[in-house]
Amino acid sequence: MTTTQLVQQIKKKKSFLCIGLDVDLNKIPKHLLKEDDPIFAFNKAIIDATNHLCVAYKPNTAFYEAYGIKGWQALEKTINYLNEKHPEIFTIADAKRGDIGNTSTMYAKAFFEDLAFDSVTVAPYMGKDSVEPFLAFENKHTILLALTSNQGAFDFQTKNIEGKEVYKHVLETSKSWKNSENLMYVVGATKAEFLADIRKIIPNSFLLVPGVGAQGGNLQDVCKYGMSDTIGLLINSSRGIIYASNDTDFVEAAAKKSEELQKQMEAILS
Amino acid sequence: MTTTQLVQQIKKKKSFLCIGLDVDLNKIPKHLLKEDDPIFAFNKAIIDATNHLCVAYKPNTAFYEAYGIKGWQALEKTINYLNEKHPEIFTIADAKRGDIGNTSTMYAKAFFEDLAFDSVTVAPYMGKDSVEPFLAFENKHTILLALTSNQGAFDFQTKNIEGKEVYKHVLETSKSWKNSENLMYVVGATKAEFLADIRKIIPNSFLLVPGVGAQGGNLQDVCKYGMSDTIGLLINSSRGIIYASNDTDFVEAAAKKSEELQKQMEAILS
Repeated sequence: MTTTQLVQQIKKKKSFLCIGLDVDLNKIPKHLLKEDDPIFAFNKAIIDATNHLCVAYKPNTAFYEAYGIKGWQALEKTINYLNEKHPEIFTIADAKRGDIGNTSTMYAKAFFEDLAFDSVTVAPYMGKDSVEPFLAFENKHTILLALTSNQGAFDFQTKNIEGKEVYKHVLETSKSWKNSENLMYVVGATKAEFLADIRKIIPNSFLLVPGVGAQGGNLQDVCKYGMSDTIGLLINSSRGIIYASNDTDFVEAAAKKSEELQKQMEAILS
Repeated sequence: MTTTQLVQQIKKKKSFLCIGLDVDLNKIPKHLLKEDDPIFAFNKAIIDATNHLCVAYKPNTAFYEAYGIKGWQALEKTINYLNEKHPEIFTIADAKRGDIGNTSTMYAKAFFEDLAFDSVTVAPYMGKDSVEPFLAFENKHTILLALTSNQGAFDFQTKNIEGKEVYKHVLETSKSWKNSENLMYVVGATKAEFLADIRKIIPNSFLLVPGVGAQGGNLQDVCKYGMSDTIGLLINSSRGIIYASNDTDFVEAAAKKSEELQKQMEAILS
């Protein structure tokens, strides 16, 4: 999917909501555990109830890998279901990968070809030759970790290198990489006050913003400081939506929470 | 496995060799492609021929994920084979994971419980709360990326924060994390001259050293500057061993290359 198509979807749906599919078998409604594939059953129910309210889904691969082969099968079924039923939806493999060149190419093949996601999250620590192999895939997007939503972001990301924080070096340096037009960035909603500075470095790039809701980030602040001329934001909510209820009404509860966020986004967009 | 047991194995085998199992179906001998599971068939043959010459195996997860479910199954079969046939061997999931707290716990479960590896490589960019969930597992080891073997290491890792390089901040900061005794570090052999400084910060920790051989690193230099009182080194070779031949003699060729390295290590240890 191109970013132009993503922007069209945002305008059509009046939403820039991304729903995180982080399925923990200890948290989903008990009645689903009887299903052959409880993880996929849960995802399918959530997708069926919320796809008109969001523009992206983001499974975090950790939650699938923790269940081994069955988990990986559930991830494959989920991305196939999305690509078949809702090809207009932007899909994000939240995998936070990154390795030396030939190895990053294998990760890129895993997520862009074998699983056919539109995008994958990548960690920047290993530098240019660990990220460029992902950028080489046409109409696929590499979402680079810049400033994450957790407390540990202050351990290294905000440390000062020659007058500028590490995450700003990541933003600036990455702009010079080959096919950098395929870059998007992760910036946590818990650090909304940093967004104005970030937009000075990358005025147009899409930002994937986790941390609204459960982690305490504020939607209005994120939009005030982070919105670009072409919107440029995907706001993620995971637990706040998918675990809004852990009972038989989980589908309705997830749709209600999604609609609340979509309505706030509609008001901001208009 | 404890580090004491690992040191015992090194002394017994007179080797601190780690063999990287980075299986690319385009590079393995053609006759193996007829097998039901060519990846596992290749790994089993390599393990059977080299297990007396090395103390660790390190599958890089990218090479398995690129083949989807079949790849994940081959990874599972490989670690199960190692744990059943060679429980004395130290196993490393080279996965370079790392995410916010609850998500890192899921990754730790994937590699320490579901797949039962002894250790996993982890990227430090997201800081303390992304690494500590891995450290919480007893007798399991978290191998933190410090200074990697690729050119991109110079993009951020060697940049200067208040008079000290980023990777040195990673080494120093990580020492204060909970259960830091379960930490090991990745330091590339291509940067052997940095090892003396690194040993001033972490005198005793085990270092996983990639980059000897195909990437140009030198074993003697690594040992000169990097060896600790209790050896403290695992030297990895992947392509140089497993693709020493891509013909029917690949097993003998891999054993020969492994033995060459083991003999060099024996000379250094004595």
